[in-house]
Amino acid sequence: MAHVSIVGTGTMGQAISSVVAKGGNTVELIGHNDTDKALTGDVVVLAVPFPAIADVVATRGDELAGKVVVDITNPLNFETFDSLVTPADSSATAGLAASLPQSRVLKAFNTTFAATLASGAVGEVPTTVLIAGDDADAKSLLGGIVTAGGLRAVDAGALSRARELEALGFLQLTLAVGEKVSWTGGFAVVS
Amino acid sequence: MAHVSIVGTGTMGQAISSVVAKGGNTVELIGHNDTDKALTGDVVVLAVPFPAIADVVATRGDELAGKVVVDITNPLNFETFDSLVTPADSSATAGLAASLPQSRVLKAFNTTFAATLASGAVGEVPTTVLIAGDDADAKSLLGGIVTAGGLRAVDAGALSRARELEALGFLQLTLAVGEKVSWTGGFAVVS
Repeated sequence: MAHVSIVGTGTMGQAISSVVAKGGNTVELIGHNDTDKALTGDVVVLAVPFPAIADVVATRGDELAGKVVVDITNPLNFETFDSLVTPADSSATAGLAASLPQSRVLKAFNTTFAATLASGAVGEVPTTVLIAGDDADAKSLLGGIVTAGGLRAVDAGALSRARELEALGFLQLTLAVGEKVSWTGGFAVVS
Repeated sequence: MAHVSIVGTGTMGQAISSVVAKGGNTVELIGHNDTDKALTGDVVVLAVPFPAIADVVATRGDELAGKVVVDITNPLNFETFDSLVTPADSSATAGLAASLPQSRVLKAFNTTFAATLASGAVGEVPTTVLIAGDDADAKSLLGGIVTAGGLRAVDAGALSRARELEALGFLQLTLAVGEKVSWTGGFAVVS
């Protein structure tokens, strides 16, 4: 059984928490004011907006050493909705991995809207969580948690693929905000 | 009725040709050796691999002035399958648009495998062609051709969104080559 800490109690944190619990794994939700609570999970999901990641690293960086850390962020410029705030040749996840050299950092959940995690489907297609990272065991561990929770998991490649996952997440958000897709739809992965 | 020229007679060129014809629009396929044939379409789809685009611009650039030009390329490094060959902060389509200042350049069809254009479905989901570009009338014209041909068309935004469409096409190709999705599947757009 895996034990998962989720930092962030918003819509995505709650949805991911439900997936973990549904699979029979244990989960703790850590809120903004839980500064005195230790992160006890072997897997830690950072379910906070991109601008809050730096603060988590500053306050929890030492605690994250040795753990699998999952970045779910879409680092959009939410004022313009027309660009990412990360360097064009990098990704939010690559930046996080650089600042957490003792953690095994993965990208996941940034291409699945919360509603599709909760329902298990994008329209009529089973929800797939795309996972990128350089550590095969870490990806396998997270993939197992996702699969146990009733969703599909697909290994999307190395950590460098986080750049494309963030482009996909960005595009999907612009389509949803522009009402081209609904928040229960978006990009479904058809195997 | 629209008249479409398709430069390139490969799998994608043929699939797009079928979509155009199915919608009651007229289409001509221009092959590599048809150097003496004029491009008579109001819309010209460049259904050639990315490395061949420069040659089309060099030999057909003047002819493309005043036309709607559709770039379908995924500019992968096909040796490594691990990166795009375009600058990280740009796209193949942006490069093409810069070299064809008198054309209205669109990105489309790079996120739909040929089989999904032919069948009209990604798995069980109707195939959606994502179209990016800066000219609303050009997008509307191409969208109408696609819709008449039995597919869905979604305006994915400005020409700058071609960068994200190319990231999506890149990711989708890596998933197909890695057998994580089939060539009849991939990313479906669920409205």
